Amino acid sequence: MLSEFDLIAKYFTRPTPNVTLGVGDDCALMTPAPGMHIAISCDMLVSGTHFFADADPRMLGHKSLAVNLSDLAAMGAKPFACTMALALPAPDETWLKAFSEGFFALADQHGCELIGGDTTRGSLNICVTVFGEVPIGQALRRDAAQVGDDIWVSGTLGDARLGLAAYLKEMSLDEATHLNAANRLHLPTPRVALGMALRGIARAAIDISDGLIGDLGHILKRSAKGARLDVDALPAGAMLAAQSQDLRRRFALAGGDDYELCFTAPPEKRSEVENAGKRSNVPVTRVGAIEAVAGVRLVDAHGEPVGIDAISFDHFNKK
Amino acid sequence: MLSEFDLIAKYFTRPTPNVTLGVGDDCALMTPAPGMHIAISCDMLVSGTHFFADADPRMLGHKSLAVNLSDLAAMGAKPFACTMALALPAPDETWLKAFSEGFFALADQHGCELIGGDTTRGSLNICVTVFGEVPIGQALRRDAAQVGDDIWVSGTLGDARLGLAAYLKEMSLDEATHLNAANRLHLPTPRVALGMALRGIARAAIDISDGLIGDLGHILKRSAKGARLDVDALPAGAMLAAQSQDLRRRFALAGGDDYELCFTAPPEKRSEVENAGKRSNVPVTRVGAIEAVAGVRLVDAHGEPVGIDAISFDHFNKK
Repeated sequence: MLSEFDLIAKYFTRPTPNVTLGVGDDCALMTPAPGMHIAISCDMLVSGTHFFADADPRMLGHKSLAVNLSDLAAMGAKPFACTMALALPAPDETWLKAFSEGFFALADQHGCELIGGDTTRGSLNICVTVFGEVPIGQALRRDAAQVGDDIWVSGTLGDARLGLAAYLKEMSLDEATHLNAANRLHLPTPRVALGMALRGIARAAIDISDGLIGDLGHILKRSAKGARLDVDALPAGAMLAAQSQDLRRRFALAGGDDYELCFTAPPEKRSEVENAGKRSNVPVTRVGAIEAVAGVRLVDAHGEPVGIDAISFDHFNKK
Repeated sequence: MLSEFDLIAKYFTRPTPNVTLGVGDDCALMTPAPGMHIAISCDMLVSGTHFFADADPRMLGHKSLAVNLSDLAAMGAKPFACTMALALPAPDETWLKAFSEGFFALADQHGCELIGGDTTRGSLNICVTVFGEVPIGQALRRDAAQVGDDIWVSGTLGDARLGLAAYLKEMSLDEATHLNAANRLHLPTPRVALGMALRGIARAAIDISDGLIGDLGHILKRSAKGARLDVDALPAGAMLAAQSQDLRRRFALAGGDDYELCFTAPPEKRSEVENAGKRSNVPVTRVGAIEAVAGVRLVDAHGEPVGIDAISFDHFNKK
């Protein structure tokens, strides 16, 4: 049986030209460029909470990095390195091979080098910490929204939630739709290029991991503002668009795991925002505006109030 | 019941003057000083593997940071920040209060600010990533040992292993000894001041988490060297010193969880090493020398070969 050290060497040791010293010492050593902030984010994915025990290891490798890159995207930071701690019930080589392939396929796309970490025996748990660079003063923070800002979202919302609903048998989907929705759930695309393109254009930003309502709520709380959201402007995913209006609204508003960006920008920057979307190959949609009064006011296409029972996702409040 | 966000706010949100932006956004932002490497290390502690399910949460808070600070110490880095991801079966406030107190008591001693992280539901798992600064060119790396270097260890070895042996009922100890040995096991002291004092004096360094033989082995492998170890020179802990010669040798050589430093330095630096120990209030003991031939040669006080069945700790090879 391969030892812990052999496993690390075989599947997780790769060249790390972005840093001074990578895997294999007590610490990794990075030498940051002057004039840059280092942005750091850390997400832990746990079997039974964030994914199912039978989850495809290649998809899991992708997702464990994607959710972290999404946080860098939401700050406008460019990924350059990460660490990973991994608890595994047993050193299963087949699983590790597929997992590391999924992980590195995405890491390579973004120039994000694995520079250190830890492997240990335990209930399956993946903790990735990512490092990105953003020029000083250009980070997109949650506390920067201003009254009158447009609210934008990238891509489409709700298809990941649809994939979850089908998996949980809350509803049935035809096979092709089920598969596509499951891919949105398991293989999110972090909007790194868009986040970087929005530097100097957007004010506040966050990634949508727990549902638009909840995540926009974090911007509002940190910025001490409120918002109007046009529920009929929300860009439903291709599969969600074929569902009932009620489901479309609920999943687009409160479905988790989309990993799109929600951001605010002053109205005079609309064409710049649209250009940023085009340059990074991601549609961007204006879905509301920042207001002075606290809370989120939902309106339909006619500006009429809409009441929807949409509770955001919270790991400790789940049933 | 407190939500995830309430729990984070209540127990883990504190001022973070060392960094530009701490807990509460998608990422933390640090702004490194020019001329410095950032040293990064990440350790995951898992219930049932690294500690017992009934472990005292205050001790666990201490240890989860201590093992990481010990990695910074082994690079000669000065801690300034950390992130923590925490999976908990349920949001148990009593547990969290004690855990966070143990964590912050040690963090405050070292000016190590908690700047971000993640909390989630799951089997108990604590993943801490620490950040330290070390001037460019002064990090103590594993690959820097040279033939003729003295091998040194800090503090004493083996008492943590003695505490484990008593807990596992491999042996019985009187109550006071058991308690003291358990403290060495559960409340390790990271040798941060010593690591910093050894900058420019020591060549290679590592912290002893898995046992001296195994951890020295990492230095030897990375430096492509061998070593002679004088087993009777090893500084046994106060409690271990009262045990049989065989146990003393075995636990000092291969007992884990000591979190002392093992380092090499050229013989002409002996008085500087001793002064570094004095300045940082940690005894240092010369226990051998780096040699050209691969492998570790164990000798007794008379220079005669000693054969000992001492296998280093490896999480995936444990029974």
